[in-house]
Amino acid sequence: MEDLYKELEKYRDSDYYPFHMPGHKRNPEAADGALADCYGLDITEIEGFDNLHQAEGILQKEQRRVTRLYGSTQSYFLVNGSTCGILSAVFAVTKDGDRILMARNCHKSVYHAVYLRKLAAVYLQPDWNMGKEEGWPAIAGRILPEAVEDALKKHPDCAAVVITSPTYEGVASDVGKIALIAHAHKIPLIVDEAHGAHFGFHEAFPCSSVRLGADLVIHSTHKTLPAMTQTALLHWNQNEKQDGSEALWGRNGSLVDRKRLERYLRIFQTSSPSYPLMASISNSMRLMEREGWAALDRLARCREAFLHRMRSCHYVRIWEAAREENGLPVGYDPCKLVIGIANGRMTGQELYDVLREEYHLQMEMATPDYVLAIVTMMDRQEGWNRLEEALIQIHHRLAQNAAQALEGRDNNKRYGCSVDGTMREQEAAMTIAEAYDAAQEWSGLAEGKGRVAAEFINLYPPGVPLAVPGERLTEEFLGELDYYGQCGLKIQGVENGCIKVVRQRTADGYEKEKDKDKH
Amino acid sequence: MEDLYKELEKYRDSDYYPFHMPGHKRNPEAADGALADCYGLDITEIEGFDNLHQAEGILQKEQRRVTRLYGSTQSYFLVNGSTCGILSAVFAVTKDGDRILMARNCHKSVYHAVYLRKLAAVYLQPDWNMGKEEGWPAIAGRILPEAVEDALKKHPDCAAVVITSPTYEGVASDVGKIALIAHAHKIPLIVDEAHGAHFGFHEAFPCSSVRLGADLVIHSTHKTLPAMTQTALLHWNQNEKQDGSEALWGRNGSLVDRKRLERYLRIFQTSSPSYPLMASISNSMRLMEREGWAALDRLARCREAFLHRMRSCHYVRIWEAAREENGLPVGYDPCKLVIGIANGRMTGQELYDVLREEYHLQMEMATPDYVLAIVTMMDRQEGWNRLEEALIQIHHRLAQNAAQALEGRDNNKRYGCSVDGTMREQEAAMTIAEAYDAAQEWSGLAEGKGRVAAEFINLYPPGVPLAVPGERLTEEFLGELDYYGQCGLKIQGVENGCIKVVRQRTADGYEKEKDKDKH
Repeated sequence: MEDLYKELEKYRDSDYYPFHMPGHKRNPEAADGALADCYGLDITEIEGFDNLHQAEGILQKEQRRVTRLYGSTQSYFLVNGSTCGILSAVFAVTKDGDRILMARNCHKSVYHAVYLRKLAAVYLQPDWNMGKEEGWPAIAGRILPEAVEDALKKHPDCAAVVITSPTYEGVASDVGKIALIAHAHKIPLIVDEAHGAHFGFHEAFPCSSVRLGADLVIHSTHKTLPAMTQTALLHWNQNEKQDGSEALWGRNGSLVDRKRLERYLRIFQTSSPSYPLMASISNSMRLMEREGWAALDRLARCREAFLHRMRSCHYVRIWEAAREENGLPVGYDPCKLVIGIANGRMTGQELYDVLREEYHLQMEMATPDYVLAIVTMMDRQEGWNRLEEALIQIHHRLAQNAAQALEGRDNNKRYGCSVDGTMREQEAAMTIAEAYDAAQEWSGLAEGKGRVAAEFINLYPPGVPLAVPGERLTEEFLGELDYYGQCGLKIQGVENGCIKVVRQRTADGYEKEKDKDKH
Repeated sequence: MEDLYKELEKYRDSDYYPFHMPGHKRNPEAADGALADCYGLDITEIEGFDNLHQAEGILQKEQRRVTRLYGSTQSYFLVNGSTCGILSAVFAVTKDGDRILMARNCHKSVYHAVYLRKLAAVYLQPDWNMGKEEGWPAIAGRILPEAVEDALKKHPDCAAVVITSPTYEGVASDVGKIALIAHAHKIPLIVDEAHGAHFGFHEAFPCSSVRLGADLVIHSTHKTLPAMTQTALLHWNQNEKQDGSEALWGRNGSLVDRKRLERYLRIFQTSSPSYPLMASISNSMRLMEREGWAALDRLARCREAFLHRMRSCHYVRIWEAAREENGLPVGYDPCKLVIGIANGRMTGQELYDVLREEYHLQMEMATPDYVLAIVTMMDRQEGWNRLEEALIQIHHRLAQNAAQALEGRDNNKRYGCSVDGTMREQEAAMTIAEAYDAAQEWSGLAEGKGRVAAEFINLYPPGVPLAVPGERLTEEFLGELDYYGQCGLKIQGVENGCIKVVRQRTADGYEKEKDKDKH
């Protein structure tokens, strides 16, 4: 098959003249340099280039290649990020007011779907035992199948299960088991595998949720694959019936109605999708098809060599997930480097700043305890070398000044929390939609104890809410927020030391603002 | 101010190494040619590059430039097309179940918002008198202020007014008057001005709805401005109060709550917006700032010269809107060329095909009666010349064969309808949400009379629904559909000559499918 990108190049080099959108008319004068080059590939739905929202030609062929590569029944290109895949997936499997079982460490887009659909959320807390035994700060781990089973027994009316696997830090859950549990309850499993689009192509990497039986899987193609930011994939799986009975929902023997899913994809994505974005998805699929295994193999070996050399630098610690727990293998993604400094002698933010300012190495994320680096098939040896040298130098500096602890550090104030708010179980006083649409007011952090959050509060990255509208704020949580501020982390939802809480009439009730009723 | 694009170039040329997304790591080996060049500009929200969903740095500066250029109170970059601007605007001004007054020729994204919000839609039919007097097929014209006034008197509980101006064919409504009427009723006016992002920069072009008092205006920057496909702007206007009283809604004295609007922008747009897309918006804004007037002046003069020369080719007709009607000026966009063949001797689709296949000139759209070409500031003289030569040749061919009418043409079957379904008033038997979520079944076109549409049916372009879920299908409408098929136009929502209708139990009622209740 001729790739979308090649076809776009051919068209650009032809003598066809555009009396259509886009308005730049592929005119090199429309932009500078690299952008103008890209404009040459930027067309609209003209003859021969299909229509994403009703793919029958080249885009259908492209999507079929994805299907072959991942083993899905049907896959879709997304140009509004994993976000639109998540919104569409949740909308396709629920109706307004349903109950949904979801991991508390889901991305904010899942919470947005819960809000729009007015769902009642039942949360699965991730296992927090990872890392701990080695003296590491706790790292958000897997969603345990037992937890899913328990929750579905308690709440048999859940319409679907949604989990994130792998986590930002790279920990994958046992999706196969969780899918079996969901299917035994005749409900679909949605896996936000945004960080795992490279899974299933090499034995050193976890298996893909598509092959493990999830009904809907969302892959970001710009996170670990080499496609452009804002691109993603959605996979629809027509799973075998578990017990020979008729599937509960939809057609095609699937737990998810495909036509319904496509309806929401048309709604949540622009009617003018970008061809350069789609070409970049195509490009990354071609890479995986032709040399996915080899490229991932090089990556895995680079990582191993790097870890091996770093092991002698004991002030710098790179987290390695246990290979197994209770005799079962743990899925861990080698694309993530969780890097901390022994004994907390530098915070994550400090390490992040030093790497950026002194070494010009830009990390993905800082938490109070560590930095997160993403390594991919496209990293050059230069990058690996520079990171190694920087960390060795930092190690030596810390070793030389071993006697001088960093001053002004109040270690008592440090919380062994991750940055996604899932360590504590917070009480949900109201549903998300109730609290988000209720009358709000500002509250200082010090006065917030016992109040109900009216906005999402999160660090970005990772974009997992620390607090969700409707959750009652605890002293512990407010202390954490304060600490994140002191660490220099940027908190979305906090302005001038204040947060939005649901307006209170009396101690026992909430009043809806009159003008708010208009919305 | 340094532009976003320049800053991205500087960063690309620096020695900063990315241990973050996107996975291509700006590695030239990640893609071919033009795409690889573009990857060099493709970053994520790292230091110095702000965050679209909480803009405080360079993106805020960019958005402030938009504000200055258009005269809005606050403007937003959009990376999920005008679609996400429309969804966010409608969600910001309504609550579930509200009534909304909307033009029947709105883009499908408005209908999607109506569906998600379960709104009851009251339609404004565009004026169909344009073109007619000159023997042209009717062209969807303006929404008349009187129609808005009448509708609001009949339905004083409407939460907002939504219109599209200009239309695909370039006809602008009297937005200033409509805004005054809406504000007198204390409700906001949303204008989908997707095709008018260049309005207000030159006296030969209509004024911008932002300056005419609309509360929310959506501009597509890829249609008539030279930005990349999928980019757009949303403008929020803090209008003066009309009568000295307190504004009904929201803060800041505006009819639209800005915080609420921003909430929905966060929901309907990816959390990973593309920097090349945003840089291309920036690039088009810089152009308009520096030489917008001059570039539009060249365009207006090119068009005039072209029209002047084409006037002698009487078999080819290019529609020119009357300058005024009832003594009042008519807003018309010179960026649109509506090209027809006299006496219907070629259908729009035939002209479209000849221009494409024989002359390699790709038009924007074909209707049964005409083709639509978009001309912009970025058209080269070569393009104008090639279009002129092609049309002159077609004229001569038709003149030579004047005696031989095109054979097999059944002119009686032609409908003087536009391609947006607004000529007929169709009865709404159910709301959009009721019909779209009801049990459905297939019906042949011949058997569809009297049934209720269960899906959107539209031609794309223009993407305005011919039929909306809930509308009762008439014989006239079904005849039109059949005719479009015969004209070779591609109809979305028709498969193998069948359409989806609401399942009927008996002649007087509708039955909801049991399994559908699950959704």
